[in-house]
Amino acid sequence: MLSSTSQYAAIDLGSNSFHMLVVREVAGGIQTLARIKRKVRLAAGLDSENILSDEAMQRGWQCLRLFSERLQDIPRDQIRVVATATLRIARNADVFIETAERILGRPVQIISGEEEARLIYQGVAHTTGGPDRRLVVDIGGGSTELAVGRGARAESLISLPMGCVTWLERYFTDRSLTRENFERAEQAAYEMLLPVAGKLKAQGWQICVGASGTVQALQEIMVAQGMDECITLPKMKQLRQRAIQCGKLEELEIPGLTLERALVFPSGLSILIAIFETLNIDAMMLAGGALREGLIYGMLHLPVEHDVRRRTIRNLQRRYQLDTDQALRVFQLADGFVRQLAPAWGLNVRCAELLELACQLHEIGLSVDFRQSEQHAAYLIRHLDLPGFTPAQKRLLAVLLQNQSGPVDLPALSQQNAIPPAQAEYLCRILRLAIIFASRRRDDTLPAVRLQVSGNELHVVLPVGWLETHPLRAENLHQESLWQSYAHWPVFIEESE
Amino acid sequence: MLSSTSQYAAIDLGSNSFHMLVVREVAGGIQTLARIKRKVRLAAGLDSENILSDEAMQRGWQCLRLFSERLQDIPRDQIRVVATATLRIARNADVFIETAERILGRPVQIISGEEEARLIYQGVAHTTGGPDRRLVVDIGGGSTELAVGRGARAESLISLPMGCVTWLERYFTDRSLTRENFERAEQAAYEMLLPVAGKLKAQGWQICVGASGTVQALQEIMVAQGMDECITLPKMKQLRQRAIQCGKLEELEIPGLTLERALVFPSGLSILIAIFETLNIDAMMLAGGALREGLIYGMLHLPVEHDVRRRTIRNLQRRYQLDTDQALRVFQLADGFVRQLAPAWGLNVRCAELLELACQLHEIGLSVDFRQSEQHAAYLIRHLDLPGFTPAQKRLLAVLLQNQSGPVDLPALSQQNAIPPAQAEYLCRILRLAIIFASRRRDDTLPAVRLQVSGNELHVVLPVGWLETHPLRAENLHQESLWQSYAHWPVFIEESE
Repeated sequence: MLSSTSQYAAIDLGSNSFHMLVVREVAGGIQTLARIKRKVRLAAGLDSENILSDEAMQRGWQCLRLFSERLQDIPRDQIRVVATATLRIARNADVFIETAERILGRPVQIISGEEEARLIYQGVAHTTGGPDRRLVVDIGGGSTELAVGRGARAESLISLPMGCVTWLERYFTDRSLTRENFERAEQAAYEMLLPVAGKLKAQGWQICVGASGTVQALQEIMVAQGMDECITLPKMKQLRQRAIQCGKLEELEIPGLTLERALVFPSGLSILIAIFETLNIDAMMLAGGALREGLIYGMLHLPVEHDVRRRTIRNLQRRYQLDTDQALRVFQLADGFVRQLAPAWGLNVRCAELLELACQLHEIGLSVDFRQSEQHAAYLIRHLDLPGFTPAQKRLLAVLLQNQSGPVDLPALSQQNAIPPAQAEYLCRILRLAIIFASRRRDDTLPAVRLQVSGNELHVVLPVGWLETHPLRAENLHQESLWQSYAHWPVFIEESE
Repeated sequence: MLSSTSQYAAIDLGSNSFHMLVVREVAGGIQTLARIKRKVRLAAGLDSENILSDEAMQRGWQCLRLFSERLQDIPRDQIRVVATATLRIARNADVFIETAERILGRPVQIISGEEEARLIYQGVAHTTGGPDRRLVVDIGGGSTELAVGRGARAESLISLPMGCVTWLERYFTDRSLTRENFERAEQAAYEMLLPVAGKLKAQGWQICVGASGTVQALQEIMVAQGMDECITLPKMKQLRQRAIQCGKLEELEIPGLTLERALVFPSGLSILIAIFETLNIDAMMLAGGALREGLIYGMLHLPVEHDVRRRTIRNLQRRYQLDTDQALRVFQLADGFVRQLAPAWGLNVRCAELLELACQLHEIGLSVDFRQSEQHAAYLIRHLDLPGFTPAQKRLLAVLLQNQSGPVDLPALSQQNAIPPAQAEYLCRILRLAIIFASRRRDDTLPAVRLQVSGNELHVVLPVGWLETHPLRAENLHQESLWQSYAHWPVFIEESE
């Protein structure tokens, strides 16, 4: 049983919002207990001399009084409070900080742009999957952080004084979404980026990861519009075109764009377009965490794992006490099937990897109940926080687990956008067969299965006499061939001559 | 991580169906891995000389071949196979058993009626809540078992050679649902029961628990028709009347009665009516387990707990790593509120007990995710196997947890039939307030709260100055008074003069 003293809090005093994240450590991972966010709009209180207005300070202190009530219950060395861009440049920041520290009873650190970039990189490294040589981009209200690194180590840290709030105030002053405003905003961003682009590009990366509201807004728009979750330049240019057609900021309407994110969406978009063009980025994916997660993981002293997804799987297997021998058995069978079918079905390494994750977690629904365990598995995967998995990967995993046995829900398999529906169907067919063959939870009863494809037909060829001597699995395979045929996946269970 | 060798299997060769239950031990509880059931209808194969026909034996062996494939993977001393009524009386049972043992590779025990009653009592004691002095009733295909006991110990064990299959064949031979057939069936059951009724009644019980398909069918019918889950004589007589109106067995149609249970429902109902009348039973609740669970718990050597519900709660708190200090804190606050409000709101001990269970588990949804944790809590409670809780209690718990914060879903609170909707609303209001006051996870920040009721209005009276010095909870209480007012529960947050 865990007590209340295992709580940690990270607070960041951003240019647009103040955020508080309270977590506790559970079984080697973190569990969120509270998230409080207030739109303080500190940056809007800066005048041309970079003096923070009294009203803006009052809004900030008011918010900190709320945070402080919750903070008092957390051990002092398990709290970190940092302030970023606006307080970095406000000439009277000391006035704000002094009162802020009195309210919170904790020191408030104004961190440098480089330190902010480093913390963001750490937050991403702890929570985001994919290759480990990465470019991280975070567009804040008053600054944009860029970091290139490998694994746990950030090698280049850059902070630029441009953000979605400052760019809104500067280039969309009239609240018009004209081509001219976008061009001015993008041009200004290019000029910021050019001096650092060469250094970053020279280092190179395998994957580009974006944090912050702009990237989240893009992700939500793509999901709402049924696109895959990769952020690309053509997609952003299409959205810019759409924004220009809306004409005015208050008339901006894009399916999937929420009211909360609309105000700073055009300015953030213009910065991101400039980043993509300057750094020649092909595709960007959404980060699982950023600054606040970097602060929390830093306090917890958890090591960055080479493969975040594998850590997540391992944590889940432990938390839900899954039978890992059985998971491995199903995976090894499925992997053998993939190898046999890859040429005919065009399965690639990425598919094989996603199938492995499905095998590792396929019994998670049993933790809720044996009845409808497939539904429970899908529910858990859909809603659990899974560091390292993108939303699209979670959806794919959920629909595969939901369809691991029983009637096939074909429409569900096309309700994911991680891989093409046909590939998802192939993975589903393989997973189902592997589960049936492994159902005895023993290695020594696994038959040598030969899989042959002819057109859409799958032939499952077993050793002579196997069906007769394994009546339970024979019955299950017979039922399975019916389920698959209802889904227009003809499968034939045969014995070799 | 648990390996595959922690599996246990219980098989019972019943008069109507053969069942196999495979479980594994997880964290002091059991998790179901497989349930296989085949309607072998062994009893139908007995002739007037009690000789089992060859066809019936073949059906049985065929089913055992399926079971046997799964059984081979389980340690031999973790398997128990028992046979009941039909094989007790079949004069050629030895022929069937010999081949059955060869197929299964395990001994098959024909157990006496008393042993069957004892195992059923154990299965109930391990899985069913409520007072611990109980009468247990199980109507099988070929026999009916009755047991009276206290806690883990069964004191009287009775087995009568009447069952829903034999009564169907004997008294509903023409498949007509006439008053006469019901009367003959009930009369025959009275005659069986009379010689033992005195002894049972002399022992007495606080609660009557029913296992078996007939009781489950009744439970399902009551839920489908929106009744509370108590089985009573008037309800059963009403259903008998309805069956008589249907006229023929194949035309039997009662909302909530499934096809699977329809055939033996009238005969089972006639036996249960006779049991209620002979033993003067007021109300019966559904057991959480019976014969197979008795076999499994017997092999696991788990002690019977005095309070099954508390064991379940404790197991869940451990499995989901809940913050038990916080659960206790919320409960103590809620309990104080109940005591203040009991006179005005008519809250009784039973309500207080159910509220305690809700407090103990209210954070279970956090294990899935902080976002929508109320929904996750409700989902888990609705679907987890919770020994000691009846279906209606689970539904109440689920709707209370779903409504622990955020907007109130009033219709949900009337979608449970454990307690009257008004009482559920009271419990919900109390739980929500307790959670807000305890939100700092510390005992020393809990204010002295005075609750006053005037009409439908609830006045929450706090010490002078408390709201000013606790701005986060003040904001939450203000928001809460809005949520409650939308649900037509006016609540006023005040400070004492």
